[in-house]
Amino acid sequence: MKKLQERIASEGKVLPGNIIKVDGFLNHRIDTALMVDIADEFGKLFDMDKVTTILTAEASGIALATICAQRYGKSMVFAKKAKSDNIEGGLYASDIFSYTYKKKVTLLVSSEWISSDDKVLIVDDFMANGEAMRGLCDIVVAAGAELVGIGCAVEKGFQGGGDRLREGGYNLHSLAIIESAEPGNIVFREGT
Amino acid sequence: MKKLQERIASEGKVLPGNIIKVDGFLNHRIDTALMVDIADEFGKLFDMDKVTTILTAEASGIALATICAQRYGKSMVFAKKAKSDNIEGGLYASDIFSYTYKKKVTLLVSSEWISSDDKVLIVDDFMANGEAMRGLCDIVVAAGAELVGIGCAVEKGFQGGGDRLREGGYNLHSLAIIESAEPGNIVFREGT
Repeated sequence: MKKLQERIASEGKVLPGNIIKVDGFLNHRIDTALMVDIADEFGKLFDMDKVTTILTAEASGIALATICAQRYGKSMVFAKKAKSDNIEGGLYASDIFSYTYKKKVTLLVSSEWISSDDKVLIVDDFMANGEAMRGLCDIVVAAGAELVGIGCAVEKGFQGGGDRLREGGYNLHSLAIIESAEPGNIVFREGT
Repeated sequence: MKKLQERIASEGKVLPGNIIKVDGFLNHRIDTALMVDIADEFGKLFDMDKVTTILTAEASGIALATICAQRYGKSMVFAKKAKSDNIEGGLYASDIFSYTYKKKVTLLVSSEWISSDDKVLIVDDFMANGEAMRGLCDIVVAAGAELVGIGCAVEKGFQGGGDRLREGGYNLHSLAIIESAEPGNIVFREGT
């Protein structure tokens, strides 16, 4: 997606440790107009008529998932990352390793809000090692729901998480796959 | 706001410890159409032409803040709750006590994304003791920005957080103020 890649190239920063910072428009300050454009792209890539529920993980996936859900008239569910006292009983849980926070995190979704009748599109803003995506896929399986696909805005291709999911047969589309990133020189995979 | 109060009355659950669970439409599974209605109400209560930035706290405020920002063409910024390695340098920080998670939490906003030129509307889905709101207000002050107002969907009036902010002179509007909550009997403050 040209527009997204241009924003990453012009506003993204490459920090030590191969961290790509896009927090001016994607995951700290949010450009909601860009989120609408991304949702439009997802509409071309996935069968939105079939989807019943958009699933994401807190926190930074929520903005994009909300815009997608609103645009296509779906419900949106976000996986929580810690058990708070306003979640009760029946939960789907999946343990993942968060490289951002350098610790194990458990993704939790109340079993009330995804069922075997659901056709789920997973949406997230960013994928590196693909741990969050894997955890969300596990939750869809645990619910007995159908996974229609996985829509990701920015993927760090060189960390392999996305390719592992594609090799596993998942219907994953990322709109900007970064093949290499050095300050001032971010290279995107052809065709994204 | 009648429609919101009807949803709380029909779908909300009162759990032991005065916990009001509205996670089927507000803060775990999100009804984005209802979020649009709430954003429309905020449009009547606040001078949206003046606002430059919608500020909220992760995670559950993000969906509503996103819809508001998209509807009125504003940028949206969410305060993070832990320092991750993709936030660098200059941060506004405010310590709050999270009653949901029963621990101290630090709200963080990069100083890049709110400045003294900004006119900020704080938006959140839920207020009990008002700690998150207080922390967000502190961040607006630290940035030297102007606080236009605070828009909240559901307020637990009997916990006093909202009234403390109103007494402090804040321009706070909550669309459903719960005065008392027992299973099967949720009472709203007159005029909300």
